[in-house]
Amino acid sequence: MSASSLWERFRQHLLRYDDLGFALDISRMRFGDDFFAGMQGAAERAFASMRELEAGAIANPDEGRMVGHYWLRAPKLAPKPELRDEIEHTLRDVKAFAAEIHGGKITAPGGGKFSDVLLIGIGGSALGPQFIADALGSAADAMTIHFLDNTDPDGIDKVFDKLDRLATTLVVVISKSGGTKETRNGMLEAAARFKAHQLDFARHAVAVTGDGSELDKVAVRDGWLKRFPMWDWVGGRTSVMSAVGLVPMALQGLDVDQFLAGAAGMDRQTRGSEVKTNAAMLLALMWYHAGNGRGERDMVILPYKDRLVLFSKYLQQLVMESLGKERDLDGKVVHQGLAVYGNKGSTDQHAYVQQLRDGVPNFFATFVEVNRDRAGESMEVEPGVTTGDYLQGFLRGTRTALYEGGRDSITLSIAELNAASVGALVALYERAVGFYASLVNVNAYHQPGVEAGKKAAAEILKLQLSVAHALRQAAGKKLTTAEIAKATGAGEEDVYHVLNHLAANSSKLTCTAAVNPADETFSV
Amino acid sequence: MSASSLWERFRQHLLRYDDLGFALDISRMRFGDDFFAGMQGAAERAFASMRELEAGAIANPDEGRMVGHYWLRAPKLAPKPELRDEIEHTLRDVKAFAAEIHGGKITAPGGGKFSDVLLIGIGGSALGPQFIADALGSAADAMTIHFLDNTDPDGIDKVFDKLDRLATTLVVVISKSGGTKETRNGMLEAAARFKAHQLDFARHAVAVTGDGSELDKVAVRDGWLKRFPMWDWVGGRTSVMSAVGLVPMALQGLDVDQFLAGAAGMDRQTRGSEVKTNAAMLLALMWYHAGNGRGERDMVILPYKDRLVLFSKYLQQLVMESLGKERDLDGKVVHQGLAVYGNKGSTDQHAYVQQLRDGVPNFFATFVEVNRDRAGESMEVEPGVTTGDYLQGFLRGTRTALYEGGRDSITLSIAELNAASVGALVALYERAVGFYASLVNVNAYHQPGVEAGKKAAAEILKLQLSVAHALRQAAGKKLTTAEIAKATGAGEEDVYHVLNHLAANSSKLTCTAAVNPADETFSV
Repeated sequence: MSASSLWERFRQHLLRYDDLGFALDISRMRFGDDFFAGMQGAAERAFASMRELEAGAIANPDEGRMVGHYWLRAPKLAPKPELRDEIEHTLRDVKAFAAEIHGGKITAPGGGKFSDVLLIGIGGSALGPQFIADALGSAADAMTIHFLDNTDPDGIDKVFDKLDRLATTLVVVISKSGGTKETRNGMLEAAARFKAHQLDFARHAVAVTGDGSELDKVAVRDGWLKRFPMWDWVGGRTSVMSAVGLVPMALQGLDVDQFLAGAAGMDRQTRGSEVKTNAAMLLALMWYHAGNGRGERDMVILPYKDRLVLFSKYLQQLVMESLGKERDLDGKVVHQGLAVYGNKGSTDQHAYVQQLRDGVPNFFATFVEVNRDRAGESMEVEPGVTTGDYLQGFLRGTRTALYEGGRDSITLSIAELNAASVGALVALYERAVGFYASLVNVNAYHQPGVEAGKKAAAEILKLQLSVAHALRQAAGKKLTTAEIAKATGAGEEDVYHVLNHLAANSSKLTCTAAVNPADETFSV
Repeated sequence: MSASSLWERFRQHLLRYDDLGFALDISRMRFGDDFFAGMQGAAERAFASMRELEAGAIANPDEGRMVGHYWLRAPKLAPKPELRDEIEHTLRDVKAFAAEIHGGKITAPGGGKFSDVLLIGIGGSALGPQFIADALGSAADAMTIHFLDNTDPDGIDKVFDKLDRLATTLVVVISKSGGTKETRNGMLEAAARFKAHQLDFARHAVAVTGDGSELDKVAVRDGWLKRFPMWDWVGGRTSVMSAVGLVPMALQGLDVDQFLAGAAGMDRQTRGSEVKTNAAMLLALMWYHAGNGRGERDMVILPYKDRLVLFSKYLQQLVMESLGKERDLDGKVVHQGLAVYGNKGSTDQHAYVQQLRDGVPNFFATFVEVNRDRAGESMEVEPGVTTGDYLQGFLRGTRTALYEGGRDSITLSIAELNAASVGALVALYERAVGFYASLVNVNAYHQPGVEAGKKAAAEILKLQLSVAHALRQAAGKKLTTAEIAKATGAGEEDVYHVLNHLAANSSKLTCTAAVNPADETFSV
């Protein structure tokens, strides 16, 4: 295509929301002239589903739940007054709590002002706050935030090694179900650290969890500082505008109201049923086009802005956990999904853009452009040219190079990076994912596939107890994997891995090495 | 397959290097009994190419260069005594320099001991040091390291906002060619900050670059504190064991010698020509099997260890920039590559493992297991169970769940995470990438595809100057994009984007908005 045809295509397809400082350019996706007409029916069904969802339908049928994350930034749209009141009350409560912490009305047990926040959570209970903290945080934040998002002992040690103000650290434990093991483990390790430093953990601890959950019970029993609710009509991966995201955000001193307002603004713009003016539907249709509605191409996210480096990680969860499904809504096996990866430009140009430009064409790119370079003025690095001009040049240059190499891309632009525009981006992708799920007929709001791994893990842990028991029963005797497997009634390979892990971490268990794993012996 | 057949397959295919505390398990890749026989010829050719490469052949024919990263940890293998001497001399020099900094023999101009390191580099000149710092660093490091790895003005501001000890910060500028614009820009912005604080930048600055490069000339001219060499026979993405990686590592106080020894140990084990005992060849063959030698499946990296969370980012560059090629060595268009993404387990189980288990089967997983949980003893989170047991249970459970869902995986195990084992991992993947490139007949050591984007970016920057000139010529007049395009002889769309970026960052340029981009006007 000539430059002038491309300019025409650009103008034809550019969608701008000037009130949000937002623009979407789909001109470098090679859909044909009849694409939109062909998708019109599917798009209308998706619009209808979304209207029902926002009105309070049971949009997550497997779990029998409403899907209400859109109400979090527009409480008046909640289908029941109780829900509206809960949302509004919680928002007020979050802001009031943060103000009391910042103002020193609530202090650490020793009387000191709380200086740090340690967030303990995983997946939907950590990724949103991590993304927000990195995108909007600065050295001027009201509190310094740290994250404990795994059950890795060494990782936990590393977090605590850097937490040198434990006496004034507020701990926010986030788990919707209240039963997530990684989070429970992190909480227990944290409580032990506080105890070891003669600090009263409960007087540092805040819970964000479902009413009556295991975590909620602990918080009530031990008299934690504060509890905030999680509702069953908000999924983990769309919970960043509930207390899950707002509590850490408010504690850091970030602008919660603008974040919600930006999302509400994007919701208003993308609630309409006209395809061409609906950025969320356009995104969903482009994803559909790129991967033939089967996820045949990966989505590579390239924000040219350091503060958005975690956006791809956030979207990995939002997109892949929502769309990666075995069965469609009719029960048919479909193995849907859309793989997401990326970091940031122009840095990634020096990493894997070589493959994007020349290699296997199994992806489409999404560029994210931020028009405003920085808060202050820029120096010139060459006459008439700034670092930000280079960043912009690299974005445009790479978009052109990819297009000329036959690789399609979408470009999102935001006027500047702030709480409102980040809120708008989150809202845009939440709705795009919902639309796409309708286009391919899957339930975007459950995650049945994660249970299999959890169950298998629980079996390994149960087996570990049996293995330890069998070893103790035969104390002093050297046993092979096969012998212990027989004693426990489990498969040899599982037993072998359990034994190896125990041997690496217990001075009591002795492993006598052999060339063949089957000949190794273990004894206590 | 039954548990006992799997146990047999596991034992049959398990490869262990006990001297390195390393094991590779390929039993959950569904290759057939005849796979290895069918690949034997290709594997032998790959072994032969690697032997030639290590002996000093021009293994990067397009750039007419030797490929010598294996010599960095075994200088005696370098094909010429001068090379051996340079490697050994540089290593001694790096360690001596770090000792002088740590010992206060070299101090900041104000007399203070250097406390922080600011590394300015991008791609191969930053990813390795970032990975190493995160994997091996701790609160006890000799110096605190910071990274500036982009030309994002706001990102640069963010780094400097947190750098509150500028007067005792050592700046290490890394660029092999010495002409990388992002790095040059970062250096200029850094120098301006030092100047603004009345600090003499040159007395804080260290260069790692090619002899006689633009950066080298600046360092000589301004009398920088120190210069370290980069050689044309070491590629950026395999430079972590040259001064690029060793300088920051030594400054942090990490064990450079063990890092090199671990890599040398892995090299020794994977230099042999027997497929079944060569972990690097087994990896390459598994990648080949998974993606039919065409990169048809993404490589998902799942290390169950927080400290390895950047490993996938490191491998993204190493694998994708090496293998993502348009043409093979015979000039045939092949569009090769292997997409890599991932973060860490079990965290990712709460993000996108839903899709891995249930969704589009377009990937294979690589689990990384670390047997030793942590330096100290673990508390119990349940009777007989620790946080580390949970981590291990989740790894094994997810491996099982994926396998049962028809998804293949490789599992690497290392006894513990330290400088030696990280060195061994890097060496393993470097060689696996080299072997795979031979299997699919591409040059793993060049990156021709990144030039297109750079050239297009340079054109945009040139255009920006013309646009600014045209605006000044017509000062006070409102011009449309088309009018400025005509005046500059450039395409409208490029001009439009340049104008928008200028307008967002200059108070002098006024943009009068319109519904249609073509109707907007710009004036100074």
